[in-house]
Amino acid sequence: MTQFMNKRENIVTEAIDGLIMASGGRLARLDGYPHIRVVVRADWDRSKVALVSGGGAGHEPAHAGFVGKGMLTAAVCGDVFASPSVDAVLAGILAVTGPAGCLLIVKNYTGDRLNFGLAAERARAFGRKVSIVIVDDDIALPHLPQARGVAGTLFVHKIAGHLAEQGADLAEVTEAAGQVVAGIKSIGMSLDTCTVPGSTKESRIPAGMVELGLGIHGEPGVEQIGFSGAEQAIAAMVDKLAVAMEPGPHVVVLNNLGGTSVLEMSVLAFELLRSRIGGQISHMVGPAAMMTSLDMRGVSVSVYPAPAAHLAALTAPSGLAAWPGCEAVGAAIVLALPDGLTPIRPIPSAHQPTRAFLTRCCEILMAMEADLNALDAKTGDGDTGSTLAGAARALIGAMDHLPLADHTQLYRAIGLELSQTMGGSSGVLLAIFFAAAGDAASSGLTMGAALKAGLDRMQQIGGAGLGDRTMVDALHPALEALGDGLAAATRAARAGADHTATMRRAKAGRAAYISEGNLEGHVDPGAEAVARLFEALGS
Amino acid sequence: MTQFMNKRENIVTEAIDGLIMASGGRLARLDGYPHIRVVVRADWDRSKVALVSGGGAGHEPAHAGFVGKGMLTAAVCGDVFASPSVDAVLAGILAVTGPAGCLLIVKNYTGDRLNFGLAAERARAFGRKVSIVIVDDDIALPHLPQARGVAGTLFVHKIAGHLAEQGADLAEVTEAAGQVVAGIKSIGMSLDTCTVPGSTKESRIPAGMVELGLGIHGEPGVEQIGFSGAEQAIAAMVDKLAVAMEPGPHVVVLNNLGGTSVLEMSVLAFELLRSRIGGQISHMVGPAAMMTSLDMRGVSVSVYPAPAAHLAALTAPSGLAAWPGCEAVGAAIVLALPDGLTPIRPIPSAHQPTRAFLTRCCEILMAMEADLNALDAKTGDGDTGSTLAGAARALIGAMDHLPLADHTQLYRAIGLELSQTMGGSSGVLLAIFFAAAGDAASSGLTMGAALKAGLDRMQQIGGAGLGDRTMVDALHPALEALGDGLAAATRAARAGADHTATMRRAKAGRAAYISEGNLEGHVDPGAEAVARLFEALGS
Repeated sequence: MTQFMNKRENIVTEAIDGLIMASGGRLARLDGYPHIRVVVRADWDRSKVALVSGGGAGHEPAHAGFVGKGMLTAAVCGDVFASPSVDAVLAGILAVTGPAGCLLIVKNYTGDRLNFGLAAERARAFGRKVSIVIVDDDIALPHLPQARGVAGTLFVHKIAGHLAEQGADLAEVTEAAGQVVAGIKSIGMSLDTCTVPGSTKESRIPAGMVELGLGIHGEPGVEQIGFSGAEQAIAAMVDKLAVAMEPGPHVVVLNNLGGTSVLEMSVLAFELLRSRIGGQISHMVGPAAMMTSLDMRGVSVSVYPAPAAHLAALTAPSGLAAWPGCEAVGAAIVLALPDGLTPIRPIPSAHQPTRAFLTRCCEILMAMEADLNALDAKTGDGDTGSTLAGAARALIGAMDHLPLADHTQLYRAIGLELSQTMGGSSGVLLAIFFAAAGDAASSGLTMGAALKAGLDRMQQIGGAGLGDRTMVDALHPALEALGDGLAAATRAARAGADHTATMRRAKAGRAAYISEGNLEGHVDPGAEAVARLFEALGS
Repeated sequence: MTQFMNKRENIVTEAIDGLIMASGGRLARLDGYPHIRVVVRADWDRSKVALVSGGGAGHEPAHAGFVGKGMLTAAVCGDVFASPSVDAVLAGILAVTGPAGCLLIVKNYTGDRLNFGLAAERARAFGRKVSIVIVDDDIALPHLPQARGVAGTLFVHKIAGHLAEQGADLAEVTEAAGQVVAGIKSIGMSLDTCTVPGSTKESRIPAGMVELGLGIHGEPGVEQIGFSGAEQAIAAMVDKLAVAMEPGPHVVVLNNLGGTSVLEMSVLAFELLRSRIGGQISHMVGPAAMMTSLDMRGVSVSVYPAPAAHLAALTAPSGLAAWPGCEAVGAAIVLALPDGLTPIRPIPSAHQPTRAFLTRCCEILMAMEADLNALDAKTGDGDTGSTLAGAARALIGAMDHLPLADHTQLYRAIGLELSQTMGGSSGVLLAIFFAAAGDAASSGLTMGAALKAGLDRMQQIGGAGLGDRTMVDALHPALEALGDGLAAATRAARAGADHTATMRRAKAGRAAYISEGNLEGHVDPGAEAVARLFEALGS
C-alpha cells in the first residue's frame, strides 16, 4: 500500500467524517453510510435556493469541501471515480430542498447525468422544484458534443452559490449557472498518472512527455507531447484555450490536479500570467488544489469571461478553506532595496596600545595553529587551528583600516571583518559575538560586560550552552571571572577547557555528530584556544 | 525533467513572482533578484511590530504565502532547501522595521540561525530593534538539544502575527512567540522521498514501509517502520506526541508535506481525531499543505496547548488563502435520512383498454428482439433488442400492480418499474422519460404533449439531440407529428429512423465510440425500434 488509507471500501466515508469532524460544526452528513454519502450544511434552514453537486470521490476538496455558506448546500459523494447512486442524490436533494427549490450542478459524465437526472425526477414527483445544469467545460476534444465537466465547475459553485445566498430565486440561480456553463473553458495536463486507491499505478506517460487534454478520472489525455518546462507546458494549454476564448477580460481558475508541489504551482501561475493570454486575465482563483484527480502531478486551467455581477460573486469573501479566493492579477510590485545593505565602514584611526594588544592576540592564535589542528583531528575535521589562524592573519592585514582609537566602533569593525573573511559557522558566530559586544559597549558597558553580552547573543544564535563541549565552556567562565582580574579569568578558562575532556557527548557544533566514546579524554579545541589565549596574554 | 519548472536557478524567483502577481496587490518584493528574494506586505506602514520569517524554499506556501495582515510582514526566501544570505535577511528586516521593531521567526537550522542572527546584529547596528525566536518543535529526536523547526512554526506565525496586528509591542510579541515555541511539538512521516528540482529522486523508502520522524528537507527520518494503513501510521506519530504532550486541550496543525492527496489528508484527519490523543484535540488547523517538503507524500502533526489568548489569535479570521483556518473539532453531526427515499407505489387499478394497449406495445417490442440485436451487432454490442424485450417482459409481469385506470400515475409507475428492472443507461433514460411525462400529464397536458415533455427531459439528461444517431431521431419527429394522427407520426418515425443510416457519426450513446466508416448505411437500432413500434401500432 502506498497511500494513507485503511480499507479501500472505507476511504470515502472516513475522509468525509474527517472533513466533518474538523469543520467546526459547519458540516453534517446524512445517516446513510455506506451507500448514501451526503455532506450538508449543518446550519441550513431551507429558506433559500439549495445547491447540490457531487459525483465520484477522488476530486477532493470537490465537492464536500465546497459545502458552506455562499457555495454548495450539499455534496453527494460516490465511490472513488464512480457516480453516486440515484438514492444518494435523491437523499441529498430531499434533505436540503425547501420551497425555494434546488439546483443540481452536474459534471458531464454519463453516470452523473443519469443518476442526478433520475433523482431529480423522483424529487419532482414529491413536489420539489429541481433544476439542473450540466457542466461541460473541457475543451480537450473540441469536436465532442459531450465535453467533460472539470474544474470550471468551481465557477458555477461560487457564482450560483453567491446568488442563492443573496436570495435569488431558482430561475435566477439556474439562469446564471447556465450562463456560466456556457462561458467556461478548461484544459488539463499532467506529467504523471494518478494512484487509484487499491490499484497499482499505471505507468503511461514516459519521462520527457506530458499528457495534454485529460479529464479528472485518470483517463488518458488527448495527446502526449514533449515536455521542456513550465513555460512550454503552459503555452501548450494556452494555445488550446486561446482559440476558444472570447475577447475581453477573463477570470482564471488555476487548479492543482493533486500532486503538483505548491512551489511548481506558483511557477505555473507566473507562466500563465505572462503567457499570450496573460493580458486577458483580470483575476485568478488559486493556484490551489480544488478539483483534483487524486494525487495526479498535473494542473488545469479554466477561464470565464465573467460579467460584473458574476465577478462580484467570485470575489465575494468565503469562509471556506477550500476556496482560495479570487484576486485581481497584475504586474509584480517591486520595491527598492532599503538603504544600509552595504555595511558602513568605520573611519580608520590609530591607537598604538590597542594595535599592539590586538596584534598580540592574533599572533597568539597563529602560534597555536598546529596544536589546535592536531587536537581537532581527534574529535573533528582538524581545522580549528587553521580557521582561527586564518582569521587572525586577516585581522592583522586589516589593522590599518580599523577604528583602533574608537573602542566601541572597533568591536563592530572586527565583527564585520570576521564575517567577511573567516567564513563558515564559526566566522558568523564570532561576527555576531563582536557585533553584539559593540552594541553593548555603545550603550556604556565595560569591556568585560560588553564581551559577556556578545557571548550571550552568540550562544542564543549558535545554540551552545555550558556543558555542550564548545569554546563557550572556556569563554563563559573566563568572562564571568574577568572582573576579578586577568589571572582569575585565565584560571577559569583553563578549568573550563579541561572540563570539556570529561564530557561524553557534544551537544552543539560539529562534534555533536561524533559518537560518545570518541570524545572523552580530549579537550575541545575551541575551548583550548580560549584557554591558551588567556594564558598567553597573562604570561 | 519531471517537474513544472523552467531553469533550476529561476524556480524560486519565478514562483515568488507568480505568487505576487496573483495576490491582488497585497504583496510586493524587494528589487534584489536573484540573490535577495524578499516578499513583503504591499500595504505595510511600519506602524506596528514587523514579523520576518523565511528560510530555504521548497516549503511553500511557507513562508511567502503567509505574508499578509495578521501574519508575517516579510518572508526572506533562500534557494530550495538553502538558507537565505545575511544580506537578504538584512534587506527584509530593514525594509519593514519601523520604530516598533521586528521579530525574526527562525526555524532551528544552523544556516538559518546564523544568517538571521548576523543580519539581526547588522540591523541593530543601524538602530533597529530586533528580537529573535528560534523554533525547534520537532520531537523526532527527543535527546537532541538542537531539535529542528518544522510545521509548528505556523503556530508562531499566526499567534505572534495576530498580536502584532492588534498593536502589541515588541517585548509582548517576542514573549508570546517564545511561549508558543516552548509549547509546540511536531512529528512527521512520509511514504516517499521528495523530488528536489533538478535532481533525481532518491528511492529510499521501500514499499510497505513508512519513514517516521523526518524533517522538511528530504533528509532521512529517524526510523523506517512497517506501514499497514492510515490508522497505524497516525498511531505511530501519536505515540511519539503523547509522551511529550501536556495535559489538557491542544490545537493541532495537520500538515500535508506536499504530495499527499486531499482525500488521504481527510482520512488522516479522521484517524487523528479518533486516536488516543483525539480527546485532547480541541481545534484543528488544516488538513492543508502549509509547510511542505516539495512534493513529499507525507504528513506532519504539530500540537500546542494554546492558552485562551493564543487560541483567540489562532481562530481569528485571516484573509490568506494559505491559512486554512483553525476550527473546533467534534464528533460528526449525523442527520436522519429524509423521508421519501422509498418510492411511493401507486395503488393498482384495472382499465382494460389501457392494459390491452400496453400489452400490445410490449409484445411488439418483444417480437423485434432478434432483428434489433442483429442490427445493433453491426454498430454496437448487439443487445438493443434484448434490452427492450427484457423491459417489455418486466412490464407485462408488473401489469397487475400498475395504476392502469389513472393515466397520470401510470406514466410515473412505468418509469419507476423501468428504473428498477431495466438497468443500464437506457433504463435510466426511459425512466426519466416516463417520470417527466407523468409530471407533465399531472399538470393537465395531453398525452402527446406529455410524451414530448418527457422526451425533452430525457434529451437534457441524456444529452442526445436530433442528428446524434439515437432513438431521438425517430421519437422526436413522431411525437411532433402525433397531433396529426398516428399515421403521420408513424411516417415521421420511419423517415427519422431511416435518416440515421445516412449519419456518418454518432454523437451520443455507445455508438459514439464507433468510427465513422462503420456506421454509415446502418439504421440506429433504437430509432428502428421506435419506428417499428409506431408501424405495428398503426397496422
